[in-house]
Amino acid sequence: MRIGVVGLGRMGANISRRLMRAGHSAVVWDANPAPVEALGGEGAVAAGGLADLVEKLPDSPKAVWVMLPHGRITEDTVNTLSGLLSRGDIIIDGGNTYYKDDVRRGRALAEKGLRYLDVGTSGGVWGLARGYCLMIGGDPDAVQHLDPIFAALAPGPGTIERTPGREGRDPRAERGYTHAGPVGAGHFVKMIHNGIEYGMMQAMAEGFDILRNRASDTLPADERFDLNLADVAEVWRRGSVVTSWLLDLTADALAKDEHLSAFSGEVADSGEGRWTIEAAIEEAVPAEVLAASLFTRFRSRQQHTFAEKVLSAMRFGFGGHVEPGKT
Amino acid sequence: MRIGVVGLGRMGANISRRLMRAGHSAVVWDANPAPVEALGGEGAVAAGGLADLVEKLPDSPKAVWVMLPHGRITEDTVNTLSGLLSRGDIIIDGGNTYYKDDVRRGRALAEKGLRYLDVGTSGGVWGLARGYCLMIGGDPDAVQHLDPIFAALAPGPGTIERTPGREGRDPRAERGYTHAGPVGAGHFVKMIHNGIEYGMMQAMAEGFDILRNRASDTLPADERFDLNLADVAEVWRRGSVVTSWLLDLTADALAKDEHLSAFSGEVADSGEGRWTIEAAIEEAVPAEVLAASLFTRFRSRQQHTFAEKVLSAMRFGFGGHVEPGKT
Amino acid sequence: MRIGVVGLGRMGANISRRLMRAGHSAVVWDANPAPVEALGGEGAVAAGGLADLVEKLPDSPKAVWVMLPHGRITEDTVNTLSGLLSRGDIIIDGGNTYYKDDVRRGRALAEKGLRYLDVGTSGGVWGLARGYCLMIGGDPDAVQHLDPIFAALAPGPGTIERTPGREGRDPRAERGYTHAGPVGAGHFVKMIHNGIEYGMMQAMAEGFDILRNRASDTLPADERFDLNLADVAEVWRRGSVVTSWLLDLTADALAKDEHLSAFSGEVADSGEGRWTIEAAIEEAVPAEVLAASLFTRFRSRQQHTFAEKVLSAMRFGFGGHVEPGKT
Amino acid sequence: MRIGVVGLGRMGANISRRLMRAGHSAVVWDANPAPVEALGGEGAVAAGGLADLVEKLPDSPKAVWVMLPHGRITEDTVNTLSGLLSRGDIIIDGGNTYYKDDVRRGRALAEKGLRYLDVGTSGGVWGLARGYCLMIGGDPDAVQHLDPIFAALAPGPGTIERTPGREGRDPRAERGYTHAGPVGAGHFVKMIHNGIEYGMMQAMAEGFDILRNRASDTLPADERFDLNLADVAEVWRRGSVVTSWLLDLTADALAKDEHLSAFSGEVADSGEGRWTIEAAIEEAVPAEVLAASLFTRFRSRQQHTFAEKVLSAMRFGFGGHVEPGKT
Repeated sequence: MRIGVVGLGRMGANISRRLMRAGHSAVVWDANPAPVEALGGEGAVAAGGLADLVEKLPDSPKAVWVMLPHGRITEDTVNTLSGLLSRGDIIIDGGNTYYKDDVRRGRALAEKGLRYLDVGTSGGVWGLARGYCLMIGGDPDAVQHLDPIFAALAPGPGTIERTPGREGRDPRAERGYTHAGPVGAGHFVKMIHNGIEYGMMQAMAEGFDILRNRASDTLPADERFDLNLADVAEVWRRGSVVTSWLLDLTADALAKDEHLSAFSGEVADSGEGRWTIEAAIEEAVPAEVLAASLFTRFRSRQQHTFAEKVLSAMRFGFGGHVEPGKT
Repeated sequence: MRIGVVGLGRMGANISRRLMRAGHSAVVWDANPAPVEALGGEGAVAAGGLADLVEKLPDSPKAVWVMLPHGRITEDTVNTLSGLLSRGDIIIDGGNTYYKDDVRRGRALAEKGLRYLDVGTSGGVWGLARGYCLMIGGDPDAVQHLDPIFAALAPGPGTIERTPGREGRDPRAERGYTHAGPVGAGHFVKMIHNGIEYGMMQAMAEGFDILRNRASDTLPADERFDLNLADVAEVWRRGSVVTSWLLDLTADALAKDEHLSAFSGEVADSGEGRWTIEAAIEEAVPAEVLAASLFTRFRSRQQHTFAEKVLSAMRFGFGGHVEPGKT
Repeated sequence: MRIGVVGLGRMGANISRRLMRAGHSAVVWDANPAPVEALGGEGAVAAGGLADLVEKLPDSPKAVWVMLPHGRITEDTVNTLSGLLSRGDIIIDGGNTYYKDDVRRGRALAEKGLRYLDVGTSGGVWGLARGYCLMIGGDPDAVQHLDPIFAALAPGPGTIERTPGREGRDPRAERGYTHAGPVGAGHFVKMIHNGIEYGMMQAMAEGFDILRNRASDTLPADERFDLNLADVAEVWRRGSVVTSWLLDLTADALAKDEHLSAFSGEVADSGEGRWTIEAAIEEAVPAEVLAASLFTRFRSRQQHTFAEKVLSAMRFGFGGHVEPGKT
Repeated sequence: MRIGVVGLGRMGANISRRLMRAGHSAVVWDANPAPVEALGGEGAVAAGGLADLVEKLPDSPKAVWVMLPHGRITEDTVNTLSGLLSRGDIIIDGGNTYYKDDVRRGRALAEKGLRYLDVGTSGGVWGLARGYCLMIGGDPDAVQHLDPIFAALAPGPGTIERTPGREGRDPRAERGYTHAGPVGAGHFVKMIHNGIEYGMMQAMAEGFDILRNRASDTLPADERFDLNLADVAEVWRRGSVVTSWLLDLTADALAKDEHLSAFSGEVADSGEGRWTIEAAIEEAVPAEVLAASLFTRFRSRQQHTFAEKVLSAMRFGFGGHVEPGKT
């Protein structure tokens, strides 16, 4: 198939490449001409703008994969495309859009007869080689129509052992993509994926923090251990319960430098972790761990919170306690 | 009555003073001669050492109030006193001893015929004027014997409105002291008091942090408020649900400086907050808030945790994300 | 002054009463005729509907206090009033409206020349006697115009000790009301008040839970205490750090029944606790304790979460662990 | 090699089998004769008691692997063995002993010239086939001596991709076992492994809970998704960031029954999760997620906490709020 790809950052460019490797054709465009040219040199059809890109998609329905940062730029691009496309054409948002924006957008596009798919796309820097895990929301016919595209992008069954009891269930999930539900469902599932990711990362991070601080000389000498964190991470990769890709990555980083001294300790968060908590609250589902994981990232980016000063002020008030650094 | 007071830091000295103001007599000693002399000038009987202090307590049973930092120094002092006192005499530990140490110590002293009372003492810098809230563990007869002492130290009913339905209940609680149970129970109750204190403080602190950051220019202009925190704290002191002494102290600090700029943000924690979590775990009681309150204090004393570096290392691994400050 | 009061539930009715006791006049209406009649019998002017209520406010600017559950009914009432009132008139929303709704509503009303005040009102069942703590957002002139109303509703300075250092600060806060900022600021401050309330309550609740479970016979006999919770709560009311109205209420409840057996354990939450977390997330402020306090309420209303079943399913998967109740 | 194995529950029996499959010989004993007989039938040397077991180990140093529930029974068995063994012999505790008990025990045995190894053993029901991940503490010579045993029990490198940068590092970690440090270090690392496991499980569980409750009819119709959890779990197994063994197990369970209706929702916890928090507290390391994961398990085993009743009692006190179920 031939589809358009708008947005040629790392994700968009590699998606185009993976499609081409599978025998599909990509008409590509980006506001930055460099990646357009580069992809052109790799066999993609370089477009000169959105109108030109749409023009270069001859088949009907046309399909355009938008792979841009969520927010204004995705919104504007979708709007412009909606003026260039015709009834039945398909716009795919492969970015990290908030599912409520998908719902709103899907409704607006449906009024014009356009079909909108929200595709949560996981894979990061590894997607080109490993394939992308795809969580798709939207019209079943459109999803069916684009099945060859999704199948090409997804990792496929690979060497991963089959889950017993999946006979009779949708075979796409085993190939690494799923049609989760109507518009919004794809990004919703991806959002929760990221929420879980935050929690699993934080669990791992706290554990290694406790391991590392076991060497502290404030502890009794025979309860103090100077553990080799690289070896610990490595040993857990085989036969333990915490075996996971996140552990592999941790083992990787610790094998390079057990002190992780290249990392400042400031940790960014993206929308999904935040929206996950909002979704939990809307549903009245307790989500202590996912929330705490988000909050530790907030905390990591500040030297001190105002909350901490309030604590010290109270302690000074009731007990005359003077914290270090008080002026 | 005449009792001995060992340890004349702020708490011990003021306890002596409050006892004397109520007509009792205090025989005082401290390793540091200055407060001994000072208290002597205020009417206390200055002792030249533990043996002299015990000597200067003529009545039987003798009672000595130990008011020292918990741990080694309290342990040693109690041990020394146990060699100087006689059957039926009473040692009071008014410090912040771990209740399991009380239990062990009480058992050892009982074998010598000595009576041990653990008295959780709350009041801080305000105790001399407001009185001390006392949570007492140990032998009922010893507690009864020292009732005049406890009554003098406690705040008394004051102007605080009576709780309906207390008819027929132990009147001591309304006067600010309670006999909580056998040895250890006093410090156990005080420990939980401090655990709750941590949680209430943290709740207050987080709320003021959210209020303060509402002025952030990352927010939409009409959802951004530059709130006067001193006025907010003050207004809540009257008629709101969060009315509390901790709020009074917060209002106090914010009236002096809304930015609390004298405080670095590093917050100490003492044993009680930690032991509270251990007690919860022993009992399998969920204590999310008390634990989180402790952890934020741990976090406040570090520039960055190793956990945060682990997070960044994973993010770099799976997504190529480069956090600020990465080298 | 004479103002209109719409909504005569417990809060609205008592607000009307408190205004009348201070010499003001209230024109009252409610969809339910009973409280209208009742208030009429107490000296209020009974209105036959919103139009009649507006009619019965002779002075300009007219002011109507809406005291209804937040959401649709408040929205509709404000909309109807906005069609009945004239330029410069004032609508007060004293309910628990989401501050973002205030911002939107205030903007819409301003286009019609109407003034909108959002007044966070704390006081519950005690407000009539103690006065209401008022947190006000909106146009300064309108706030100034209604100062006699706010002063009458607020608790006044009372017997609460003055905060040192408040000289030169806005005196209204000491009388129990504050003008927090533009439209939305009042409900924002009230929202955070409730968020803090959740956290303080949860801290207290966890502490008493640990105290109570100390009697468990799974603990070593000499570390097991059968504590009198009513006495513990009572003793903390005097001289301790956790002295607070919430503690008073706890002491009250425990004095009536130490087992609190009348309470099922299901705990409701209202919007404010949820919105507080959303505000924290918008500001990237860590709010572990406030979030955990919300989540425990969510949890309290379920027999079991699906999350717990997922945990058991994993445990069964990796370890063959069979939890109690497994079929 | 020939070693003794004491305790033939699932773990001990399968350890014996895995050793025999690798050509080693096991002298086995259990208080329950059935598994002794069974293992005897599979080629193990059946012992008639501890003395007989020690007798049947001809080589020096003798080595006995104790695989019993932690606590009293392990303690007693180790004590008995210590009376039967000779200088230089080795006792291995493969159970889940608290590392502080190891430290104490190791010291006592060292005084008798015995060597004690604490071996954290992960593998559960899968260990026989997959191999056991081993975390070893104790004397390096003893660890070296038993290397063939550890190598046989561990999973070996398998098909798991090599971590780049491990050249020059201890090769044992890549084969699934590690010598973590002196006595106690093995169980310490295993303990933290379990702590992390709790956190990762809870993250996963919360995520699936939010996914499942997205079908709730309290949500707006177009933000409501009836997601197929089995497919979601399955799709994440390929190419996503949360790929892990725990996810595999979840996919497994959900493929069998999306409602997990066989599971009651009560979740047990073992010592390691609790001790992990204690270790974090000793080190002043924040561990919000690991603690919250423990607390949700505590909560899962109660119908209601007393804390929740305290909350309701306060809400009734300040607001007259009557929760469902109040009498």
